[in-house]
Amino acid sequence: MATVDYPDPVRRLIAQLKQLPGIGPKSAERIAVWLIQSGAETSIAFSDILAAAAREVTECRTCGFFATEELGCAICDGQHREAHLLCIVEQPTDILPLERSGAFRGHYHSLRGRISPLDNVGPEDLRIGELVKRVESGEFLEIILALSSDVEGEATCHYLAELLGGFEGVRISRLAQGLPAGGGLNSADELTLLRALQGRVGV
Amino acid sequence: MATVDYPDPVRRLIAQLKQLPGIGPKSAERIAVWLIQSGAETSIAFSDILAAAAREVTECRTCGFFATEELGCAICDGQHREAHLLCIVEQPTDILPLERSGAFRGHYHSLRGRISPLDNVGPEDLRIGELVKRVESGEFLEIILALSSDVEGEATCHYLAELLGGFEGVRISRLAQGLPAGGGLNSADELTLLRALQGRVGV
Repeated sequence: MATVDYPDPVRRLIAQLKQLPGIGPKSAERIAVWLIQSGAETSIAFSDILAAAAREVTECRTCGFFATEELGCAICDGQHREAHLLCIVEQPTDILPLERSGAFRGHYHSLRGRISPLDNVGPEDLRIGELVKRVESGEFLEIILALSSDVEGEATCHYLAELLGGFEGVRISRLAQGLPAGGGLNSADELTLLRALQGRVGV
Repeated sequence: MATVDYPDPVRRLIAQLKQLPGIGPKSAERIAVWLIQSGAETSIAFSDILAAAAREVTECRTCGFFATEELGCAICDGQHREAHLLCIVEQPTDILPLERSGAFRGHYHSLRGRISPLDNVGPEDLRIGELVKRVESGEFLEIILALSSDVEGEATCHYLAELLGGFEGVRISRLAQGLPAGGGLNSADELTLLRALQGRVGV
């Protein structure tokens, strides 16, 4: 005799939940049961909100951040932004941490990835054509490369520095590397210490 | 100037995801972004499966396990079950681990909770009336109390043992308490050891 399992709609929900990032089989089961036990209203509300997000949220054609047809892009359409500053990030999700730091109020450009030969991602797979067009328009005086400090991030940084170095009157900079805030010397790895030493600044 | 945040539909989705058990703000954000970046098809499929589960899954009126209108309850309608055995559990989710153990093939009755005066849960809040009716029908010869081994579980056990003790010809038993499988003596707490000693069996 087959072991009793959840009814099909529950098993389908568990299977779907397991695909979410960071959700394992146990969590998926717990969430599915919670949703079903919360009653149909909660699940239907959830389902509606999810469908609305899928329907309404688009990618801004200019910067690559999340936008809606109705309201446009909060960054590109935003008032009081420093019009001459452009910050290049890998993912649209990298924009919010920079915004929350309060240190930057210019414009952004999300590449939707970084150059990674091992994953078959080359410059043509990224939003680099769109980037060149924006820079060609001549509106930016400084471009900040805010990419990861790992191998692929460094490679993308070098590629972009070379590509954009030809535009006259445009300064290109990149994020500083060094000790993270609140981090002691003993918790920093050797490469971080090397970078912190190389990038030392006068006091 | 206000800091830029995700568009409203994304924020609503994050807020909804944060309500799920075990999902914190960071996970909710990661999942929401993943869903949106997977494209509308994935999210709509997800939304449909969730709505279907909410619509189709009901509680079996007899045992309290998950059921569907169309297919009924896999346990109560199941073939080849030992008809005279009833296992009482706290939650419908407790049924599957017991099934998976392979040690029991009788019927179940989920109480939907346990007696807990601190949480204002008394016997009248549980599916005890339904339980008494099932036992009164005379179909069960043994009732196994498979409740938690904590204070509320013990209290519920005592209450049910007294309540069901009046039925003639019905044997009432409860799960053994002792060392968990694979557990050494040094990792067991004192109460577990006490119970294991009290419940020692001849070899």
